[in-house]
Order: sequence, then C-alpha cells, then structure tokens
Amino acid sequence: MLYSQSITPPRDGRQSDRALAIQRGVGRLFRARGHAVISELVLTTGRRADIIALGPNGEITIVEIKSSIEDFRADNKWFDYAPFCDRLYFASHAGVPASIFPETTGLIMADAYGAEILREAPVATLAGARRKAMTIRFAQAAAHRLHGLFDPEAGFADV
Amino acid sequence: MLYSQSITPPRDGRQSDRALAIQRGVGRLFRARGHAVISELVLTTGRRADIIALGPNGEITIVEIKSSIEDFRADNKWFDYAPFCDRLYFASHAGVPASIFPETTGLIMADAYGAEILREAPVATLAGARRKAMTIRFAQAAAHRLHGLFDPEAGFADV
Repeated sequence: MLYSQSITPPRDGRQSDRALAIQRGVGRLFRARGHAVISELVLTTGRRADIIALGPNGEITIVEIKSSIEDFRADNKWFDYAPFCDRLYFASHAGVPASIFPETTGLIMADAYGAEILREAPVATLAGARRKAMTIRFAQAAAHRLHGLFDPEAGFADV
Repeated sequence: MLYSQSITPPRDGRQSDRALAIQRGVGRLFRARGHAVISELVLTTGRRADIIALGPNGEITIVEIKSSIEDFRADNKWFDYAPFCDRLYFASHAGVPASIFPETTGLIMADAYGAEILREAPVATLAGARRKAMTIRFAQAAAHRLHGLFDPEAGFADV
C-alpha cells in the first residue's frame, strides 16, 4: 500500500448502516474479480447509482443496494440504470427474500465481509459512445474524490 | 464535499518535498481546467508517470516533474511517455531555468499553490485502442486507491 492512513467511507445520510455493509461486501467481491469500484456515481439523468464497477476490459456494472423489502418496493428507479451499464444487479442481504427481486436482473447477497452472486445479470452491451462517456465519468469521479482527500483546499465540489 | 476527513498524499520515498509541491500545484491547475488528476501511474512499459490528467472529453496528459537541473539531466525516460498521451509536459519551479527543457514538449512552472503553463504541449492524438486502455488504467488506479482507503482490509496491492 502506498498509503499510511485510512479513512472512513463517505457518509451523507443517504445510506443506512445495513446499506453500507452491503456496499462494502459487494466492493470486495468485485475487487476480487478484477473490477474497480466506486459508490454513488451521478449519471447524466441526475440519478445516483449505488455502486459502479469497471472491469479490466472496460465492462461497466451497476449494483443497486436494497437493504429491506420496503426499500425495494419504494423505489422503481432501477429501470433507469439499465441503459448505463452492461450488467445490472440488485444487492441485498440474507434477511430479505431473494424472490422479491426481478429475474431479469442479477442478484447478489452480501454482508460487510463479502458477497456472493446468486444470479448472474444478463449482458446488454453498451454502445461505444455511452461506454466511453461512462468510463470517463467513472474515472473523473474516482480521481476527483481521491484528489480532494489529498488536497482539500483545491476547491472540489461534491463529485 | 462528501468526505469529513482529509489525509496526507502518498509518500513512498520517490518524491522530494519540492516534487510534491510541484505535484500539488500542477494538480490544482488541471483540476481548474476540468481535468481529473492522479499521480504515479504505472504504464504497460513498467514506467511510472508522475502525473496523469484525464480531460472531460477523454484527453490524456502526462506531466513529468523535474525539481532540479540535475533531476532533468539524470533522466531521459520521458521519451517513453509520449506514446501514452495526447500531450506531454514537463513541470518545474522558478528556480530551474526554463531553457533546459526541450521545446518539443509543453512546460509548466508550479509551486505548492498553483501552476502556470509557459508553453503549451503539441498535440499527438492517441489511437483509439491505446486511449481506451489508458483510460481504463487511469480509472482503475484511481478507484482502487480510493477503495483501499475506505476498506484497507480488502486486500489491495500497490496500485
């Protein structure tokens, strides 16, 4: 590791402790598969995807975290994420029945220490222009956040 | 800002305090121009570029830091960076004469608080496949470093 210190994950009141645990476990799963992961990426639609992963060949995955049945039922915005990724998964935990999630998306069960893919997501390959735009958006968000940690005086907005 | 804490930049013995000051100033310059910036990116050749910037349209810039005349003279590896970027700059500080730097590259003068472009770099547009590979490399490095700060237990290597 290049870094001598660690920090706590970003907290902005949007995520419950349970959702943060799922986020951590899913992050470890994708990291182990060679993908880079960031959380809370705002798309061009203004929607904020919970987790975005970028694979070694540029594959883009979005994971929507649902930490309870109510959380899933209250929110149908996940339809809007499909056009921005090659694969779309829901991620939840063992206390939520897998049967509530649509079979047309992938499904991941996670805790704070790791995660398991219960159902692979169907692949809907992104067109080149959108893939390029998503990759740049991912890269800029990750680098800006890192840069903001190293040089908080540099005038970073919420990225 | 999403983050409530800040950390110090990575230190691994490769950079002098002067070089770190230049790095910070150059980072602020590119950030102000809408580019995302990371330091110390290892290329496919094994060479480590000092600063890489990714512009809003995917433009890739490499900046090589030279903190003294000796530092510049001792190292000709900058030739190897040109094939990996659209624009290549040297960055130095006011105590080093601008005349020692080749006119075929861009030149930036920096201190810890900012930087100024003295000579724009000529543009040598990357081919699509290499641009894609560099963008993914940049994105993965930035996201892995950020992820490693949030979850140091996740088993990150030096990225």
